[in-house]
Amino acid sequence: MPKGIIENSENYQPGLSIDCVIFGFHDNQLKVLLIKTPYEEKWSLPGGFVPLEQDIDTAAITVLNDRTGMEGIFLRQFSTFGRVKRNDKHFNDLVLEYYKIPKEAGKWFAQRFVTIGYYALVDFLKAIPHKENSKEKIEWIDHKEVPELILDHKEILDKALATLRIELNLMPIGYNLLPEKFTMPELQKLYETILDKKLDRRNFLRKITNIGILTKLDEKKSNVAHKAPNLYSFDKDRYEEVLKNGLNQGW
Amino acid sequence: MPKGIIENSENYQPGLSIDCVIFGFHDNQLKVLLIKTPYEEKWSLPGGFVPLEQDIDTAAITVLNDRTGMEGIFLRQFSTFGRVKRNDKHFNDLVLEYYKIPKEAGKWFAQRFVTIGYYALVDFLKAIPHKENSKEKIEWIDHKEVPELILDHKEILDKALATLRIELNLMPIGYNLLPEKFTMPELQKLYETILDKKLDRRNFLRKITNIGILTKLDEKKSNVAHKAPNLYSFDKDRYEEVLKNGLNQGW
Repeated sequence: MPKGIIENSENYQPGLSIDCVIFGFHDNQLKVLLIKTPYEEKWSLPGGFVPLEQDIDTAAITVLNDRTGMEGIFLRQFSTFGRVKRNDKHFNDLVLEYYKIPKEAGKWFAQRFVTIGYYALVDFLKAIPHKENSKEKIEWIDHKEVPELILDHKEILDKALATLRIELNLMPIGYNLLPEKFTMPELQKLYETILDKKLDRRNFLRKITNIGILTKLDEKKSNVAHKAPNLYSFDKDRYEEVLKNGLNQGW
Repeated sequence: MPKGIIENSENYQPGLSIDCVIFGFHDNQLKVLLIKTPYEEKWSLPGGFVPLEQDIDTAAITVLNDRTGMEGIFLRQFSTFGRVKRNDKHFNDLVLEYYKIPKEAGKWFAQRFVTIGYYALVDFLKAIPHKENSKEKIEWIDHKEVPELILDHKEILDKALATLRIELNLMPIGYNLLPEKFTMPELQKLYETILDKKLDRRNFLRKITNIGILTKLDEKKSNVAHKAPNLYSFDKDRYEEVLKNGLNQGW
């Protein structure tokens, strides 16, 4: 990626990048989409730069689409990272050396960069990770088994996860991550996986029901030996409304 | 302000600014600190640029200190604004014309700027608004009587207020904004003023007590005719702990 951009750097916002933390959930597993470039032993978050003629949000959506083929996915800006020391001359040298870019032409890339972090949560079975070139690796990696990352990408990832956990208290999740009809234990498992803790069954049922985004269906899960659990679906209108206005569980 | 920076622009991160939404609370009033520069009819948020050798958070703290004389105040990054159209050629021309800066030298200032928003909440009686030059105005303005603002500053202000309201659900506020000893109605009024709505007295008492940051004092408010209300203070250790870890009223 950087080569084309370094050669056309006048078309990009200087010193500004985008990094995307793309969380993937499926079947009680929470993963994160990571890249290994050919010029660095460490892995990194998928990212990009901001074309001068593009809003920063659009630039972030472009990274997500390019890397997963997914569109219309909830992508949320969560923080901007701008410590002076987040930049790393050694890393820059590796990139420039790999692409055989002379130091003079690589000045743009070697300047101080501030990066805007975005996160998304998708079903990792529906997303198709896309490499930008044959020498790159891109993989869904379990969020508890993340290898060493470049620069401050671990800090960015940690903050994205902390933000996702906080935002579970502010808005609903689950649409697109669960089957159309799901059981209460399946929904609870989604929350438990993201929060990385066990939740009390009765409390969870009470709280999630109070939000009013669920429709209890007139059918039960089949293929279950005893006590078939009830099936639910999301009330999409109400879900969208709560997503827009927040859970309002507050003061 | 911009003059010195435009002339030394090589020492600043290009295309990046900081804008600070400084809320001031005192005695049931919520105000915001605004500036009127001599070259624009509209008011603006106090802001600045990012020296190459300074972290973005430090640059934000510098703006707050320079403008209010306050230190050690909670200042929180809440969003970065980067629509292409947020820049305004007319506004740039006004600045350059006012400072009699030739177009060529003003190129740095005329480029596309992305801005990082920070907000703070201070006691407006303790903050002393500081002008950068004699032709500038700087004032605490009631948040419901904000005049027209430059660029997207109204959007930045609105988002800061929305974030502050959401964060009332995530962390405690009040320290430094109330007298050392305060009554429950005084604390409730702080929340009501920020949220701009009436709260139920019993619910508020129950919720705020559950957080465990208050110490009920063995004295009552004096100078009150009937039924002198109890006095409270913040348990500072517990307050700091909750500020760090969040209210955890969640799942």
